[in-house]
Amino acid sequence: MFYHIKELQYDARPAGPDPLFAAKLQEILGGQYGEISVMMQYLFQGYNSRADAKYRDLLLDVGTEEMAHVEMLATLIARLLDKAPVEEQDRMYRSQPVVAAVMGGTNPQHIIASGLGAMPVDSVGNRWTASYIGASGNLLADFRANLTAESMGRLQAVRLYEMAHDPGVKDTLSFMIARDTAHQNQWAAAIAELEQREGDLVVPTTFPRHLQKQEVAYDLYNLSRGEASKEGRWASGPSMDGKGTFNYVADPVPFGPKAYLHPAPYWVHDTMVPMMK
Amino acid sequence: MFYHIKELQYDARPAGPDPLFAAKLQEILGGQYGEISVMMQYLFQGYNSRADAKYRDLLLDVGTEEMAHVEMLATLIARLLDKAPVEEQDRMYRSQPVVAAVMGGTNPQHIIASGLGAMPVDSVGNRWTASYIGASGNLLADFRANLTAESMGRLQAVRLYEMAHDPGVKDTLSFMIARDTAHQNQWAAAIAELEQREGDLVVPTTFPRHLQKQEVAYDLYNLSRGEASKEGRWASGPSMDGKGTFNYVADPVPFGPKAYLHPAPYWVHDTMVPMMK
Amino acid sequence: MFYHIKELQYDARPAGPDPLFAAKLQEILGGQYGEISVMMQYLFQGYNSRADAKYRDLLLDVGTEEMAHVEMLATLIARLLDKAPVEEQDRMYRSQPVVAAVMGGTNPQHIIASGLGAMPVDSVGNRWTASYIGASGNLLADFRANLTAESMGRLQAVRLYEMAHDPGVKDTLSFMIARDTAHQNQWAAAIAELEQREGDLVVPTTFPRHLQKQEVAYDLYNLSRGEASKEGRWASGPSMDGKGTFNYVADPVPFGPKAYLHPAPYWVHDTMVPMMK
Amino acid sequence: MFYHIKELQYDARPAGPDPLFAAKLQEILGGQYGEISVMMQYLFQGYNSRADAKYRDLLLDVGTEEMAHVEMLATLIARLLDKAPVEEQDRMYRSQPVVAAVMGGTNPQHIIASGLGAMPVDSVGNRWTASYIGASGNLLADFRANLTAESMGRLQAVRLYEMAHDPGVKDTLSFMIARDTAHQNQWAAAIAELEQREGDLVVPTTFPRHLQKQEVAYDLYNLSRGEASKEGRWASGPSMDGKGTFNYVADPVPFGPKAYLHPAPYWVHDTMVPMMK
Amino acid sequence: MFYHIKELQYDARPAGPDPLFAAKLQEILGGQYGEISVMMQYLFQGYNSRADAKYRDLLLDVGTEEMAHVEMLATLIARLLDKAPVEEQDRMYRSQPVVAAVMGGTNPQHIIASGLGAMPVDSVGNRWTASYIGASGNLLADFRANLTAESMGRLQAVRLYEMAHDPGVKDTLSFMIARDTAHQNQWAAAIAELEQREGDLVVPTTFPRHLQKQEVAYDLYNLSRGEASKEGRWASGPSMDGKGTFNYVADPVPFGPKAYLHPAPYWVHDTMVPMMK
Amino acid sequence: MFYHIKELQYDARPAGPDPLFAAKLQEILGGQYGEISVMMQYLFQGYNSRADAKYRDLLLDVGTEEMAHVEMLATLIARLLDKAPVEEQDRMYRSQPVVAAVMGGTNPQHIIASGLGAMPVDSVGNRWTASYIGASGNLLADFRANLTAESMGRLQAVRLYEMAHDPGVKDTLSFMIARDTAHQNQWAAAIAELEQREGDLVVPTTFPRHLQKQEVAYDLYNLSRGEASKEGRWASGPSMDGKGTFNYVADPVPFGPKAYLHPAPYWVHDTMVPMMK
Repeated sequence: MFYHIKELQYDARPAGPDPLFAAKLQEILGGQYGEISVMMQYLFQGYNSRADAKYRDLLLDVGTEEMAHVEMLATLIARLLDKAPVEEQDRMYRSQPVVAAVMGGTNPQHIIASGLGAMPVDSVGNRWTASYIGASGNLLADFRANLTAESMGRLQAVRLYEMAHDPGVKDTLSFMIARDTAHQNQWAAAIAELEQREGDLVVPTTFPRHLQKQEVAYDLYNLSRGEASKEGRWASGPSMDGKGTFNYVADPVPFGPKAYLHPAPYWVHDTMVPMMK
Repeated sequence: MFYHIKELQYDARPAGPDPLFAAKLQEILGGQYGEISVMMQYLFQGYNSRADAKYRDLLLDVGTEEMAHVEMLATLIARLLDKAPVEEQDRMYRSQPVVAAVMGGTNPQHIIASGLGAMPVDSVGNRWTASYIGASGNLLADFRANLTAESMGRLQAVRLYEMAHDPGVKDTLSFMIARDTAHQNQWAAAIAELEQREGDLVVPTTFPRHLQKQEVAYDLYNLSRGEASKEGRWASGPSMDGKGTFNYVADPVPFGPKAYLHPAPYWVHDTMVPMMK
Repeated sequence: MFYHIKELQYDARPAGPDPLFAAKLQEILGGQYGEISVMMQYLFQGYNSRADAKYRDLLLDVGTEEMAHVEMLATLIARLLDKAPVEEQDRMYRSQPVVAAVMGGTNPQHIIASGLGAMPVDSVGNRWTASYIGASGNLLADFRANLTAESMGRLQAVRLYEMAHDPGVKDTLSFMIARDTAHQNQWAAAIAELEQREGDLVVPTTFPRHLQKQEVAYDLYNLSRGEASKEGRWASGPSMDGKGTFNYVADPVPFGPKAYLHPAPYWVHDTMVPMMK
Repeated sequence: MFYHIKELQYDARPAGPDPLFAAKLQEILGGQYGEISVMMQYLFQGYNSRADAKYRDLLLDVGTEEMAHVEMLATLIARLLDKAPVEEQDRMYRSQPVVAAVMGGTNPQHIIASGLGAMPVDSVGNRWTASYIGASGNLLADFRANLTAESMGRLQAVRLYEMAHDPGVKDTLSFMIARDTAHQNQWAAAIAELEQREGDLVVPTTFPRHLQKQEVAYDLYNLSRGEASKEGRWASGPSMDGKGTFNYVADPVPFGPKAYLHPAPYWVHDTMVPMMK
Repeated sequence: MFYHIKELQYDARPAGPDPLFAAKLQEILGGQYGEISVMMQYLFQGYNSRADAKYRDLLLDVGTEEMAHVEMLATLIARLLDKAPVEEQDRMYRSQPVVAAVMGGTNPQHIIASGLGAMPVDSVGNRWTASYIGASGNLLADFRANLTAESMGRLQAVRLYEMAHDPGVKDTLSFMIARDTAHQNQWAAAIAELEQREGDLVVPTTFPRHLQKQEVAYDLYNLSRGEASKEGRWASGPSMDGKGTFNYVADPVPFGPKAYLHPAPYWVHDTMVPMMK
Repeated sequence: MFYHIKELQYDARPAGPDPLFAAKLQEILGGQYGEISVMMQYLFQGYNSRADAKYRDLLLDVGTEEMAHVEMLATLIARLLDKAPVEEQDRMYRSQPVVAAVMGGTNPQHIIASGLGAMPVDSVGNRWTASYIGASGNLLADFRANLTAESMGRLQAVRLYEMAHDPGVKDTLSFMIARDTAHQNQWAAAIAELEQREGDLVVPTTFPRHLQKQEVAYDLYNLSRGEASKEGRWASGPSMDGKGTFNYVADPVPFGPKAYLHPAPYWVHDTMVPMMK
């Protein structure tokens, strides 16, 4: 169960309206790596957690904070649309190219659909979808998804910071960028803890290694002309899981035969091979 | 540019037909973390790469291997549908509950839509969507996405292995599980190399730290009753990036004021506050 | 079965081309609350109707009218793209910022994909999806969905009217806004009739009340600091269904215990709790 | 900002595992009218609200409660998958049709993707999408959307109640059905209050009536053979908004001329009419 | 504008209920190549048509017929769900495996969401999306899309016919299969007429051939080991457009250089190449 | 299995940056009829092919070439974003309308999400989805889908060619347009070969004609006032399959009775008809 505190976690107050930037900010609210994605991902991972209590608690604590970030960004976007003299600008743009230019990048749904409100969409208007998130029940896999999401999220927030001019917007973004720093560190810490505890880094760590084709478990196949891909930590030396040695295969060949499928039975009406007709 | 080799990377030959398992296998072909996802993710990361040549080469080498995995799984699924006496079973199920039971979990599109072929869908029939993948241009973020995808992918392959009975299916899966071991190790190696080179683990490493709200960059906010989340590496001690100290905030309070939005202008026809009407 | 009349229900003739406004008008054609949505919603409700004949007839009559609205809007959009000197403008925009500005808000698919035709998309290009609509078989629920759709639809049409300048566009919109007035009234009338007949307003009215937890059926839980939500018709007095009394709970507490899930069995390879390993 | 209370709003404890019912319950968690939909709809309506404070507070109070419902349902579903001897059943089904039958309706992703956890999907596996929800800034339209969502939601919960056998599941559903009763009453009250305050029921109430084609604002067009649709409150008598009279048009005719579009310019390469070639 | 005739174009009356087959029939109602797809595709092609009147008329005539097919299939599906003793069967399935087996392939939304009605979804529950359809303004391209849609549609109807047992269902399908025969012939005729009139079969026929790289316009590149692809009409002889000669290239080589992208500017925070840092 | 050749099939080198055109070019990379669609469609058709080896080989040869086209377009788009002084332009646009105008049509995700890279999206930002493609197992149906895709694809490439100014972009497009010419010819040839071999053009050719309602198999129903649709090859004369005669039905009437559905059973809680209550 949840309680709502009417205060924002951090202020979200732009110096003035900017409907173009509002459209861009939607990316980190309702985009693939936006706040809705991390909120839903952490909450579902937490609700489904069958492991130690501390992980469930961590997931729900951070998930609950992301709910506050959704609220902050929605408020920031609504304020960038706030008192925006859009109508006047729209009226003017027939005769005044400057205003028309500024209008070019707005999201028309910010007027037509949401009436100057934020939406659960990204910066090009795609509706948020749960296809963005994952919650597998395996926390090492999940925490990696979380570290990825925070990495992508901070990267996008930083790019928006670089594109922003409004000091209020930059201030709110600088808070969110810092929180993403905290969250990247926390998921990295949780990953390190779990990898140590499970004694492996290959998810799932619980699958007996002898059941996989062990002989191809550390190969890198050079599937293109040239061997630039040989020049990295991944191509030689002990594997990261400490259980094998990286092996660079310069000229990989197929292990299997050609694929061939039996002709289809009559009743599916696939193309018949001539003799069958 | 690409060349196709008609041989499969590894054989994909079930001992017999099993349309139910074919439906389940679709998850690791066309699902969120299936082979199409990693193929497309690595190829787009590679095509867009503006960094050192070895990363582009690595991405395209592994992406090219994933194309072979798509081919293997598609073949495996088609063969599980191969020569399946579905029509006969379907005809029988009115009188024979055993057969009806076996039919219960098939994907009807494997007959109606694909004519006994694999489809770019997951195990419940959702069409593959590019919403599943990410390619940001920042390779540390991208490699984390790749490690996540391989972790989720191997986890799902292992679960399918546990559910499989056909020795041919298990054999093919044991190859793919081993390759996922290799790929998890490789992305982990690439991440370690990049983190060392960039001297930080917080993506993007290039954003000046003083531009973020440094004072909240290592806090963990306990946003629920009880402090189970305090019991982890993430709550105290030096932060993982070596640039701060984790700080557990037992009773977090808002930094911001209440949210308030100005009334909407007349012309958007939002609900008017009474005095404005 | 249907017949098509070649005349439009109402004229849809703009005074001149305006590709920017064409892009915005797509919202009420192929958007969430656009004409395709109401057409499909009413037709499916009608086809599936198992209640009195008059409801099926009403649904199909109005659904058939919405098909005419789809036709009118598609024609209006095509004409706004009609004879538009887009090519010339596009050629000019390198040297002439005024034209470039006007181009900024066009939908590029109106040239590339549809060749100056309307599309089943919204104003930001999302393809229409049946996820927008509902048809439940319970007409009181369905009519509420219809009243909602007409309310949202008229609101969006009015906002577009406010943004329009072309007298022909405004004229067509004024017809559609009036029809939305009729439809809101009609669904409101149908709702009133059904509520009276069923003697209740809580859908489904046919579920025995004693089978629900009656003691929480009229509570409003104040889940935030402050009690602004107490100041409304919903917080006290007789409930709208006449079967209870609104009850404002200022300090709600959980009725249930903490959530806890059993550890996962080994074979799903979730994170194991330490003692199990 | 939000706080999480570890206790559930109401207990969610089935008597035993039932993976088939878990799959069905997903509908009211992650389906079109499920708890995620109402949670997100109310929160976004609240964050964007520019009207009186009491409405924002009401929206966020109820939205915060829906977050608790998401938590309850996720927990209930995870428990229905809890300790489920799926593996054993799966192993058995080759020889035992009874078990195979029971397996027929499970969601394979509950094992493969979520590892015995709930997912943000509906009962056939469609991922939740923000295309399900609306938040327009016009509260009368929004409250109608909310009443619709609660009507559909309670209808679906009741249908699941009818299909359920587990007393624990029925108990949790009876709580949720009661809360849906409360919410239907509350949105109905809020609608009544707003309609009275705005003196109209046609959304948006603020658009001057003389700007719409007043002469068609109360017509019902009989667009099919037979006049069953004449037999209802919607076809005669004063209109529901008290501003007109319903008018049944038995033989409606088009107001407009035939549609005709000008030939396309050469450079879009549409089909040319012969003389143009 | 449209009129609705209450009679069905052809009867749609199964001999008895069959909820499993209802779920499968959804494929040709709301699936990728179902009746909703052709209805929407032909109507949008017609509304947007800027060519000779006869094409618009043909498109709208056939599109209007498809609306009748949507109606027939929706009715057929609703009747297959009609009077189905699902509740009883559901209650029984704990003890009676036969009934459970029959339940295994039902669409749970046919009860929970639509209340025994048809839905705009496919046989695995994906909602219909306008991503399925195309309308380009170039009628030769569009008619090919239409011939494709009718080919796929008839193929699926035939496969369902093969799987059907109910004589009423088979009778309705035999009507729809015949109409698909008519429509395939009609689109084929329209294609032949347009190809003759435009003097070419390569869409768009209006693009000057000298503006394309003429030297690669008839090559087939053998991009795999072995030359099975050489054995067909497509590999040698005059090209189908009569303007060139098919040319089989057994060992194709790249025409271009290696891809290389410039390093990203600092402010996008892509991975920096070392010297830039 | 596949090998990657680092050289591009054809050069993809624009004369200079043009982020607006990059956004438009996305249509033929990740749009409905873009290169990802044909790549995936041909590969899946090939993998699933149960017919003669030459068809599988053809499909995989052409599918493999399309992979090279994806690579070329991704490179071209990345280069159009390459070294683009976007930041400077963005900074300038407050004071300089010319630059602002140019910015109006960019895809903000090209900065925020992909960091100056191509994306698997269309020109308005919709993510690529497998809903775009088909692979049925019936090669005549599939080849028609392929001919359609190449027709739509070349049409879009030509439209982009008309809108392009950069000589490098035009050069790359002229190569792709020529290849689309080759592919249209090849699929047309394959269709002709299969139609001749199967002795029919109506897919599936293997369904016994006497099982369809033969009497309606060549009718065209004039479902609108006026008979413009009579003026075409499709309305009279021998049918294209040579097995019948086109028949124009000027005044079509329904073959079936009115639709009527039985009332719903109580337990689904649809609207009850009064006597049942």
